[in-house]
Amino acid sequence: MNNYSLNDIRSMNDSGAECLARDIRAFLIENVTLTGGHLASNLGIVEISLALLRVFDAPDDKIIYDTGHQSYVHKLLTGRLDDFATLRQYGGLSGFTKRSESEYDPFGAGHSSTSISAALGFCRAATLKGEASRAIAVIGDGAFTGGMIYEALNNIRPTDNIIIVLNDNDMSISKNVGSMSKYLGKIRTDDKYFALKERSSTALGSIPVIGKPAANIARGMKNAVKSVVMRDNMFEQLGINYLGPADGNNLHTVEAILREAKRKKGPAIIHLHTRKGKGFAPAEKNPCNYHSLSPAGNNPKREMTFSRAFGETLANLAQKDGNIVAVTAAMADGVGLCDFRRRFPKRFFDVGIAEQHAMTFSAGLAADGMLPFFAVYSTFFQRCYDQLMHDIVLQKLKAVVVLDHAGFADHDGPTHHGLFDISLTLNLPELDIYSPATVKELIRAMGEVTQRDGQGYVNKHPAVIRYAKGAENPLVAEKFPCNSDIELLCAENAEAVIVTFGRITANAVEAAELLKESGVSVSVIKISKLYPLDSDRLCKLIESSGSHRLICFLEEGMRLGGFSESVAAGAASGKYRLPAGKIIIRAVEDCFIPQGSLNELWRHSGLSPEQIAEAVRTGLDDET
Amino acid sequence: MNNYSLNDIRSMNDSGAECLARDIRAFLIENVTLTGGHLASNLGIVEISLALLRVFDAPDDKIIYDTGHQSYVHKLLTGRLDDFATLRQYGGLSGFTKRSESEYDPFGAGHSSTSISAALGFCRAATLKGEASRAIAVIGDGAFTGGMIYEALNNIRPTDNIIIVLNDNDMSISKNVGSMSKYLGKIRTDDKYFALKERSSTALGSIPVIGKPAANIARGMKNAVKSVVMRDNMFEQLGINYLGPADGNNLHTVEAILREAKRKKGPAIIHLHTRKGKGFAPAEKNPCNYHSLSPAGNNPKREMTFSRAFGETLANLAQKDGNIVAVTAAMADGVGLCDFRRRFPKRFFDVGIAEQHAMTFSAGLAADGMLPFFAVYSTFFQRCYDQLMHDIVLQKLKAVVVLDHAGFADHDGPTHHGLFDISLTLNLPELDIYSPATVKELIRAMGEVTQRDGQGYVNKHPAVIRYAKGAENPLVAEKFPCNSDIELLCAENAEAVIVTFGRITANAVEAAELLKESGVSVSVIKISKLYPLDSDRLCKLIESSGSHRLICFLEEGMRLGGFSESVAAGAASGKYRLPAGKIIIRAVEDCFIPQGSLNELWRHSGLSPEQIAEAVRTGLDDET
Repeated sequence: MNNYSLNDIRSMNDSGAECLARDIRAFLIENVTLTGGHLASNLGIVEISLALLRVFDAPDDKIIYDTGHQSYVHKLLTGRLDDFATLRQYGGLSGFTKRSESEYDPFGAGHSSTSISAALGFCRAATLKGEASRAIAVIGDGAFTGGMIYEALNNIRPTDNIIIVLNDNDMSISKNVGSMSKYLGKIRTDDKYFALKERSSTALGSIPVIGKPAANIARGMKNAVKSVVMRDNMFEQLGINYLGPADGNNLHTVEAILREAKRKKGPAIIHLHTRKGKGFAPAEKNPCNYHSLSPAGNNPKREMTFSRAFGETLANLAQKDGNIVAVTAAMADGVGLCDFRRRFPKRFFDVGIAEQHAMTFSAGLAADGMLPFFAVYSTFFQRCYDQLMHDIVLQKLKAVVVLDHAGFADHDGPTHHGLFDISLTLNLPELDIYSPATVKELIRAMGEVTQRDGQGYVNKHPAVIRYAKGAENPLVAEKFPCNSDIELLCAENAEAVIVTFGRITANAVEAAELLKESGVSVSVIKISKLYPLDSDRLCKLIESSGSHRLICFLEEGMRLGGFSESVAAGAASGKYRLPAGKIIIRAVEDCFIPQGSLNELWRHSGLSPEQIAEAVRTGLDDET
Repeated sequence: MNNYSLNDIRSMNDSGAECLARDIRAFLIENVTLTGGHLASNLGIVEISLALLRVFDAPDDKIIYDTGHQSYVHKLLTGRLDDFATLRQYGGLSGFTKRSESEYDPFGAGHSSTSISAALGFCRAATLKGEASRAIAVIGDGAFTGGMIYEALNNIRPTDNIIIVLNDNDMSISKNVGSMSKYLGKIRTDDKYFALKERSSTALGSIPVIGKPAANIARGMKNAVKSVVMRDNMFEQLGINYLGPADGNNLHTVEAILREAKRKKGPAIIHLHTRKGKGFAPAEKNPCNYHSLSPAGNNPKREMTFSRAFGETLANLAQKDGNIVAVTAAMADGVGLCDFRRRFPKRFFDVGIAEQHAMTFSAGLAADGMLPFFAVYSTFFQRCYDQLMHDIVLQKLKAVVVLDHAGFADHDGPTHHGLFDISLTLNLPELDIYSPATVKELIRAMGEVTQRDGQGYVNKHPAVIRYAKGAENPLVAEKFPCNSDIELLCAENAEAVIVTFGRITANAVEAAELLKESGVSVSVIKISKLYPLDSDRLCKLIESSGSHRLICFLEEGMRLGGFSESVAAGAASGKYRLPAGKIIIRAVEDCFIPQGSLNELWRHSGLSPEQIAEAVRTGLDDET
């Protein structure tokens, strides 16, 4: 694929642009299967991304990709072709839009459903500054299930120069759910839609491509579009001009409809129907499998990941306990619930990309006697902190929130790392927190929260179970029995002890091994239940860990407000009677962590086994 | 007003029920003006609450009041009449719905827009258990602007026995905003609405009240209702039966339409038009003034509250800086922005009860060069943590989030206390945090975040400014100059020092005075900028505060993950080189705090001046 300037792209004739679209598709298929990332959604959006750059005046007009995972074509066409091989790599291009990457990314993302709110901010700022620029939000029908969309739509005024391009492929991450999706489908399959398709192919197909000013095409299109504008549809009822539905994989059609929206003043929603995976047969056939790819050669699907272990265990527990139900926010596959869904379809609820609803819906289920497990990525849980606090914990309802991807989310980068959930959950009274480091610990935690006696569940507390992306590190299972809340890996004549939890326990063990090689003996304590903390046992184990001249707390999460700080503060203030010893804390210090492989991120944040070993060594040296 | 059983209420004839409605209204006017609380909205909902209990089978059918502030009538009619004088008092009835208070409160609230999600949980649980009960969400048009509503509506299936009663008074807390509100208004003022009103008054008015079975009334009503069902409206498009609009202050009409919804299977939305403040002339005329009342005798409006100082200062700053804009989520009055709105209508944005949108909208404004101040109560900020992290802080956008009601929110109780914001914001990198204890400090903080030089704003960080409900305690302004980030009130020959911030600084000063009386000299350090913490200065001031045998950190917020823990952990782990001294932390320990007066809540949580003095004394005694 050639590297065109934006001027080139804008001045291309139609057949040149169509040719470019084909080149982009070929490029994506060849490259994303190598780099990993979101293939199917980017194949579907080729014509939309190209048309937006041809019709609008970026960067003056702000093109905002919702969630940002479908911005690859936009990146290729805005000066980032040569760097594309670095996509999602440490130091490379982000897999999402990113302000610091390009002036053509006016607003970054990673989480869903923010684009219309942001675009409205740009609109109002432009108005205040007396500028005529437009803000364009490009959003999939999946992201359209998030409540922020509605909050933003509700705030659109007739004077806002906002254009919403609804990229409707009847799929978000997997098959869409909900009545809005059905409603869009109904519009799509309405007779009038086909009328437009036929009419536009006739009208536009007969227009000679060269020598006809674009305005004429737009004018021709205008009538075709107008005739199918549905005055009674939901968007019109909210005061937003509705254009469409139209074929979003037909470049002519997309450009014409965008020009029509540009010509009009005020807010418009353009409803485009696209095909996820368009142009790549395997992806068209199985778009779910091609939603997010791992880099070539990696096939994590075969591993026993935490997600898979969670899903299987939950299904087994549900077999015996009819109260158990599962809730997901459009991530059945990501959190390992596909098997549960197959086995217990009536007890499985996918609510769409709607984490807030998912949490309160779970609260409602719990209030009526069910035991819901709401499984969500740690980073997306940030969306529903208030619902956990206000609807579940405050009401003392028994529900379990399962946080997948807790800790570094490697190549997905800063929007997806799960580094905040500890400080978010630790401050909530009587919310039990488990942070298993191995599958065995996960199963144990799930057994504990579902244990029943004659009076119902033995433990009445709501609970959080958090674990890392991917599989356990076998080193931990090898070194620890993994059958109690706090365990000690005791080294002979230990001078220091590392206290840690979750996946990073493996780094502690490796650090201890490195230190042993250089003659320093260090014990490791692994905690699997963070709250309530069995501080007596922790103190006892630290006591018996060796000389514990140095106690190193190690955490794969933010230092400020994290677990380590809480225990260290407890020790400092006499809440816990920890044995005397110098304390150091190794955690993510006060900054955002970029994308990269897990090993790169350990090193970046000073949490690799070598760096931990070094910190312990320095700590001991300072002491002597 | 008499205390009727639910059986009495259900078996009353129509004129008896109407008489009861009049009694309730008189009771509310007499009592809420004494107890304080939400008067106008409860006056508006009398007929709806009464009709719901007459038509449905509570507690089997679940009646869920959204937000819960308009549940007074429901409380009076479900066994809580005799306790009504304790409303919003320490140990008394909650001003919101509360599960632990009554089996007729199946789901508690305080925050808005959760009812449909919760009701859907009850629906699905009932289905799984094979029960035929219904879940009814009663929600105002204000709460209808929250995104959770849409997420929940999107999840309603044709088989869900959910009834949504939309109490549309064209007002939420103040005048409603947004296109949904306009849309509802359009339905309301449609000719068909008046047709129904006339028809129903004729049809129902002519029915003899006694001796006519209710079923007949329902049947008569059915046709009247059906004739105005608008198949093309938004709710029908989402697959929800729409009934209405109808007069929600006409008991006959409300009961008839509820019976119709009960008779039907599947989901229904009942659109009722009510008058906020109905039956009390001053409240009908000025419903905003009667939204939330203080107890008789209190008139905090005259004080220079933090909110008022914020609003006035912002308007003054905006006069000089054209980039400053203000954003609120339906709380212009509550956060003190009415004056700003009047002076800068184009730079003021009220987005409705939509905190998530408000934050990302602010991010969009900031990304295009504005300086937004988004003012929100601390507790409602919990709704948009992710948007602060993902859209503002991660993108390094300069915006200011102003957290009002940080700390105890007295009579509003546990759903409204702002005790979590410190741990929520402290973990976000490069987010400056100010916690002024006085108006002077607030103005200083606002000056600092808006300070400009030739290159724009001097401080590029986004910032949080958090302060308490109400006015400053003059004691703090009296004892401290309030013109730098950390200040010391040094006592002669001090044995201990209390380190604190925000409103509770006054308690520290009082504690020091109490201790002085008993011969113990204690210094006080007040921090107004929590992040970045000038730890060198803090250490220096502790050093110069006296003997500092004991350092007591004091915080009006959760201990776990709070500021005190963070500094104590920093001291314990060598991050900060605090002078040696025994450390104790006084903060809100691991539990939810009830409602009550500020003094009651200080005592409840062990944070009264007396209790702080006692803790310091004990700490010093243990030491010797």
